[in-house]
Amino acid sequence: MSVNEPPPTVTVAEYLLQRLAALGVRHLFGVPGDYNLALLDTVLAFPNIEWVGTANELGASYAADGYARVRGFGALLTTFGVGELSAANGVAGSYAERVSLVHLTVGPSSSTERAGAVVHHTAGDGDYDRFARAHAPLVCAAAVLRPETAPAEIDRVLATALHMSRPGYLRLPSDVATAQVPAPLGPLRVETTVDETSRASFRDSARARIAEARHITVLADFLADRHHARAPLARLIAVGRLPWSTLSMGKSLLGEETPGFTGVYSGALVEPAARQAVDEADLLIQVGVLLADTTTGGFTHGFDPEAGIDIGPYEARVEGKVFEGLPMEAALDVLTELIGQRPGGASPDSRPAASSTAVDGTEPLTQEHLWDALATWVTPDTTVLAEQGTSFFGMCTRRLPSGAKFIAQPLWGSIGYTLPALLGAQLADPARRGLLLIGDGSAQMTIQELGTIARQGLTPVIVLVNNDGYTVERAIHGPRAPYNDIATWDWSAVPAALGAPDALVLQAATPAGLAHALERAEEATDRLVFLEVRTGMDDVPELLHRLSESVRTRNGGEA
Amino acid sequence: MSVNEPPPTVTVAEYLLQRLAALGVRHLFGVPGDYNLALLDTVLAFPNIEWVGTANELGASYAADGYARVRGFGALLTTFGVGELSAANGVAGSYAERVSLVHLTVGPSSSTERAGAVVHHTAGDGDYDRFARAHAPLVCAAAVLRPETAPAEIDRVLATALHMSRPGYLRLPSDVATAQVPAPLGPLRVETTVDETSRASFRDSARARIAEARHITVLADFLADRHHARAPLARLIAVGRLPWSTLSMGKSLLGEETPGFTGVYSGALVEPAARQAVDEADLLIQVGVLLADTTTGGFTHGFDPEAGIDIGPYEARVEGKVFEGLPMEAALDVLTELIGQRPGGASPDSRPAASSTAVDGTEPLTQEHLWDALATWVTPDTTVLAEQGTSFFGMCTRRLPSGAKFIAQPLWGSIGYTLPALLGAQLADPARRGLLLIGDGSAQMTIQELGTIARQGLTPVIVLVNNDGYTVERAIHGPRAPYNDIATWDWSAVPAALGAPDALVLQAATPAGLAHALERAEEATDRLVFLEVRTGMDDVPELLHRLSESVRTRNGGEA
Repeated sequence: MSVNEPPPTVTVAEYLLQRLAALGVRHLFGVPGDYNLALLDTVLAFPNIEWVGTANELGASYAADGYARVRGFGALLTTFGVGELSAANGVAGSYAERVSLVHLTVGPSSSTERAGAVVHHTAGDGDYDRFARAHAPLVCAAAVLRPETAPAEIDRVLATALHMSRPGYLRLPSDVATAQVPAPLGPLRVETTVDETSRASFRDSARARIAEARHITVLADFLADRHHARAPLARLIAVGRLPWSTLSMGKSLLGEETPGFTGVYSGALVEPAARQAVDEADLLIQVGVLLADTTTGGFTHGFDPEAGIDIGPYEARVEGKVFEGLPMEAALDVLTELIGQRPGGASPDSRPAASSTAVDGTEPLTQEHLWDALATWVTPDTTVLAEQGTSFFGMCTRRLPSGAKFIAQPLWGSIGYTLPALLGAQLADPARRGLLLIGDGSAQMTIQELGTIARQGLTPVIVLVNNDGYTVERAIHGPRAPYNDIATWDWSAVPAALGAPDALVLQAATPAGLAHALERAEEATDRLVFLEVRTGMDDVPELLHRLSESVRTRNGGEA
Repeated sequence: MSVNEPPPTVTVAEYLLQRLAALGVRHLFGVPGDYNLALLDTVLAFPNIEWVGTANELGASYAADGYARVRGFGALLTTFGVGELSAANGVAGSYAERVSLVHLTVGPSSSTERAGAVVHHTAGDGDYDRFARAHAPLVCAAAVLRPETAPAEIDRVLATALHMSRPGYLRLPSDVATAQVPAPLGPLRVETTVDETSRASFRDSARARIAEARHITVLADFLADRHHARAPLARLIAVGRLPWSTLSMGKSLLGEETPGFTGVYSGALVEPAARQAVDEADLLIQVGVLLADTTTGGFTHGFDPEAGIDIGPYEARVEGKVFEGLPMEAALDVLTELIGQRPGGASPDSRPAASSTAVDGTEPLTQEHLWDALATWVTPDTTVLAEQGTSFFGMCTRRLPSGAKFIAQPLWGSIGYTLPALLGAQLADPARRGLLLIGDGSAQMTIQELGTIARQGLTPVIVLVNNDGYTVERAIHGPRAPYNDIATWDWSAVPAALGAPDALVLQAATPAGLAHALERAEEATDRLVFLEVRTGMDDVPELLHRLSESVRTRNGGEA
């Protein structure tokens, strides 16, 4: 265009959608409300983003989180007050677990705001910023959009959400959504500068430390996933033929069939084979690690987290010395260069023999057998979502084939998360089949999104572990206390009642029954499969049994 | 006890429960989580308060709100982070609609907090006050309890919640719950002082204003209910034989068969008979009124809210002149005294003839017929909960028998509220039968609490209005837009699937079918009744039809 031509304009809503589309967002999750309906018309007319209406806003926030874990960025849309607050727990979970997304909420028009009118979805006092204040502690960046500043504020919030790998929050008065602003002129700029002095100093310190090490082990965690460092991490491990492990939050970060994998590390609670390489390394390289109670067996890790080399999202450390301005990928590339100059060691064959408890198939199903069987069923194309109950603790230590993706929420630990997260993860990559592992107490929290999954024509496999209540809590406290009981549902009737009449509904209470059901699930690739499995109300995976001891101690309670 | 004896001590948890019991709380709603399990043991052992586990925390907050609307105070208990944030929308609704309750949340122990440990349900950064900050804008008083100050802080938060009729928030580190503190020494003190000078001045001004008035009308609203002024309000109306009305938020504040009732006022949207007495009074006495868009037909009220006499919760006004320090009851008593000295006028017979559209019974059910038939079915012992969709707009203008209680949420307007609120309202007064009126889109939001209602052995009547989506929104915008569609559920199968296998499940699609179903519902007093009624996807009550026009204008949208 000529220099005299006015720059093209778009509406604020279109600006936002164009930015989201450029980030790979193809689905927007949420619930309509009268303030956001006009914006929804813009979404319907927009070519690259599909509206996915969920049954409630918590479901939308969990779905956007699951979506972002697969595609790198997610988005949800709610209405003012009632809608945005219902999503608060999900958004806070994304904050804790470092998931990049944006929470859009549309409120009354600017003129209604200025008048301080007592309209619905407000607290009736003319205070229109109340809910933005409530969200401020739950997001990494927030803005209330005005036409003059909307492009800059949208860019700031999205770039911060990307850079920090955390949620942002944008409120749009309904009229601002339709205001005209200049169209985006170039791509969104996200800060990724490397401090060259820092890189050189880090190289020197790391070289010296590596030179004196005999046994080097890599311990990786979820921040390496969130900060897009899977490939440089894989190069580091490959070049040095290094033994490596992940914490459970980082499970499936790299394929678990990659040479050198010693199993998921969970402090003193896992078998010696899975912790020796970490605890006994004379140089441990931590990559994107956060040591949480639920991922370290209650802080029973056997190494000094301040020692060795620690690669964080924005800085690196060598024996406690900090090198700032060093993004994860840059630091990993330095290590790969250094390790590559070192004489290579033999890569340990770390693949343990598959556990195979002898069973005849007709006895009651145990949790140990259940997770073994499910892990065997997983293929490289499976996305496994393990709810933060027995499902997570059962599955996180099972070896999965390379390519399989594992989604869980062990730090935030909000039960009910995985069912809507399945919706998001499945839409984010329809070529993979979702396998949801969830207990009955958790599923009751967010069951309405089963209908949304069916309405979207998705065909995941849902394994509902029916053990009559909050078994994960029974393991910690009050094994027979009534507060750990829940309402008794007829799970096999749930899919047909809640919008999935075409689901293949299966039940299993024995190993043979489970084997048969999993065969049928594998064949029924064109249908949603809902498999109810029965396990004992006190039957828990070994890892949870051990962890509950340490949680009890921390809570100061007794069984 | 002798002066030398040490004062009796209790745990902080017991102190709190004793205070709640003294406020009439007999049920505590919530969801267990490992941080609150030890406190739950105290609840189980406490004689006067029963634990009611809900399927999720939003359900607990709505249930506590419904409970508080019947009993005057409610309470919910959640776990740190994940649990408390899931309840945020419900608690904010109590703030907006002025419902007294307390949100208790139990977090990690004080020593874990002090160590800044990265434990589950935190954001992983050692910031333990993040979620209290998020709640601060949503409650009227909040505290994190420590043993030294717990009794005073509990008393302050509960007293403020009572005085302001709004929610309070208390976080207990798990160890604080079991710390010993002095037992409560006397009853909780709540501020109710009357400024005598103000009372005298108010009397003089009100006397002068009343003296010059010929037609006096009372317009009451929900704040008269929340501030316990039903009895003095009834005395005022009776002594003056005054015509009176309520806004829809105040519906059922006084019996609608009380002489002088002119119907629910909703601005220009209601029939002349229901607005004349208000708009044409030469003295309007407002009692506890808040003029909101949804209750005034989009601010189409035909009177000057600054004129006349206005009785608020803590102050009164006469023609704009403010008299502070005058609680509602004190101001009403002054008016009753003044009006009683005035020559009485004839009480208008305000009972309109029952509307009776001629129907032969086999044609499709219409919304107009539905709400007429349901209003006729209501008895003085019925608690009607009308969801903020077609149910609210249909029911709020129907005359109910005196004694019937009406619960709705027109200001906050969070759809899905009434189903869990039914749980709370029904437990709060089991002698009354709940009648829930809710649409399919709303019911999908919170359906899991149907199982909780059944588990508690409650026997309300639930009328599920199945019209294939968000009809209240279709009336406002996008009548055929896909975002107003929802997943298709098999509603008749829902009770048996979600924990209510003994429910009497009925369906009606015609007036005759509805009449038959309501007869069966009336007989089945010992069972939960679930009645699915079918109405057209665009069929809305007349009031909503008129209101949607004005909302469209405010949103700047078109149909």
